[in-house]
Amino acid sequence: MKVGGTHYRSIWRDGDSGEVRIIDQRWLPHEFKVVTLNTLDEFAVAIRDMWVRGAPLIGATAAYGVASAVTRDPSDANLAETCEVLNATRPTAVNLKWALDRCKSALSPLAIESRAAAAWVLAEEVVEEDVEINRRIGENGLALIREIAASKPEGEPVHLLTHCNAGWLATVDWGTATSPMYHAQDAGIPIHVWVDETRPRNQGALTAWELGEAGISHQYIVDNAGGHLMQHGMVDLVITGTDRTTARGDVCNKIGTYLKALAARDNKVPFYVALPSPTIDWSINDGVAEIPIEERPSREISHVLGMTDAGIGDVRVTPEGAGTGNPAFDVTPNRLVTGLITERGICEASFEGLAALFPDKAG
Amino acid sequence: MKVGGTHYRSIWRDGDSGEVRIIDQRWLPHEFKVVTLNTLDEFAVAIRDMWVRGAPLIGATAAYGVASAVTRDPSDANLAETCEVLNATRPTAVNLKWALDRCKSALSPLAIESRAAAAWVLAEEVVEEDVEINRRIGENGLALIREIAASKPEGEPVHLLTHCNAGWLATVDWGTATSPMYHAQDAGIPIHVWVDETRPRNQGALTAWELGEAGISHQYIVDNAGGHLMQHGMVDLVITGTDRTTARGDVCNKIGTYLKALAARDNKVPFYVALPSPTIDWSINDGVAEIPIEERPSREISHVLGMTDAGIGDVRVTPEGAGTGNPAFDVTPNRLVTGLITERGICEASFEGLAALFPDKAG
Repeated sequence: MKVGGTHYRSIWRDGDSGEVRIIDQRWLPHEFKVVTLNTLDEFAVAIRDMWVRGAPLIGATAAYGVASAVTRDPSDANLAETCEVLNATRPTAVNLKWALDRCKSALSPLAIESRAAAAWVLAEEVVEEDVEINRRIGENGLALIREIAASKPEGEPVHLLTHCNAGWLATVDWGTATSPMYHAQDAGIPIHVWVDETRPRNQGALTAWELGEAGISHQYIVDNAGGHLMQHGMVDLVITGTDRTTARGDVCNKIGTYLKALAARDNKVPFYVALPSPTIDWSINDGVAEIPIEERPSREISHVLGMTDAGIGDVRVTPEGAGTGNPAFDVTPNRLVTGLITERGICEASFEGLAALFPDKAG
Repeated sequence: MKVGGTHYRSIWRDGDSGEVRIIDQRWLPHEFKVVTLNTLDEFAVAIRDMWVRGAPLIGATAAYGVASAVTRDPSDANLAETCEVLNATRPTAVNLKWALDRCKSALSPLAIESRAAAAWVLAEEVVEEDVEINRRIGENGLALIREIAASKPEGEPVHLLTHCNAGWLATVDWGTATSPMYHAQDAGIPIHVWVDETRPRNQGALTAWELGEAGISHQYIVDNAGGHLMQHGMVDLVITGTDRTTARGDVCNKIGTYLKALAARDNKVPFYVALPSPTIDWSINDGVAEIPIEERPSREISHVLGMTDAGIGDVRVTPEGAGTGNPAFDVTPNRLVTGLITERGICEASFEGLAALFPDKAG
């Protein structure tokens, strides 16, 4: 998507040098920095220390990391070690393991001399598949926005609300929840987006930055505000992303998503989740009971990162030594979800709904 | 309540000097500063610039401000001017106008020479009435906590959740929502309090500070977390304050209260509001339709204040120039409120419930 008028992806291979470049997201939305990843260590650090984030982007970075490593040394030993090192960077990231397994099983049977070329082809495949999934989610979500726009007076914007950053920075391009927004813009449908701050890590600032660079009208709000806006008819549609969705359509996503779903139901606002099919966990059903919720470090709660006169820094907001709690995700039960926007279409948040679109995966 | 083991109120008249002292709350929870208010200008600045905050405390500060001014110059002209200056500091604060009207109508008919003494008596009355109201709210709320404690295994704490700071810093002593907590502690009932951060102004940090100074077990959480905690049975009771409650029991309170009420209902967690009767607005019924919600400055959203290595400062969390929205309050409809804890007892959130306790006011 656009940064300063130029089209970027969150990761790409430079055409001239053949080097892999990423946007170092640690400095966003305050500074836009592109860095080159060369050594295995650089790829590992980029994933582990969250220079890149978001499940699809992590998978893509790992695939490029393997290609880069195998180009230097295509031996079995190096392939195995590379996958091991990268896999250890974010142990709970499903897409990471998935991408590495895919690389390993595709490259291992090949002759040593053909591995490098194959690895780059594979990485491009992983990347392009993600772009295509999100492009289709955008097309499918666009239909919802178009329908709402048609019910409004000509020119009145469709008001969306989103939580966290399910934007192109978390994928390779388009994003998931944001893809319908970019498609609406391309289709000339006026929209306005309420962007939840999304404490504790304030990823809403990334979403606001993305939308700002794309020229999409938006306002950054605290996580507390959405219910009030919905009560007053100021939200037409909620679209969020998801980190993991169960076979029956329970949605695990950034903490606070559940509260917005409750407010949406109470005010009859449609609540949709943008769901790339690799995010479906067909092995579980009851999200509240079965998904363990990661408790993250206290400093994310006690401190807030931002821009100061002296550069990027943080402030402590809590009393010194105060105890904190930091559950990172919550689960929105399927009964609160109006529908799931997948790359194959929109379905009800239920096993039947998902299985009808993905009979090949629902087993 | 306690600060460093010593009992403080949020405002008091020093016994020796006769001077009025307040806690300058702008520096909390990071620095505890007591300042003396002498001139009318100092009283006005303290209210306007939020050295003191919370409706009851603002009223008490105004009453002391009148007493102080009338002591220097008891003339009609000075009484009128003092009330005018103080009333202009926070134009929407109901308690401010109420306290000033009370001073003016009580003092005006008196002989010039008896006004000063009467004004101090009046200020003490305003203060003591507030303390007594909140003490009784605490006793009445204690019954709820006691009942929950009795249903649990011996020694297992009652888990409460609160939003914003409806603590003693917002009143003279005890607080409203926190008063039942302090009473539970005094009664030897183990409790644990989840403290909502309460963006944008993070008043949860004040609540965490209060509870920490009192030695009450608590954890500071982001506003997004409460729904997840309730889903997992980690909250037994929600108690919040209120800025204004309608005759039928709709509760206007700090933005985000409504989201917690929705989560409480969805998880069958009792949701109570601590309601001093002066906060009831008998003139309106439908809170969502009738209460205009103040839109506050953008900087509260874009920036976060806290402690840095160099002292108290703030960081910008939004992209430069990003648009924001900042509705400061929301309305929780009475259907989501389990009950109202008033100084006269607990009642249903309805006109009938309130009128039964306050027949003298329900008119």
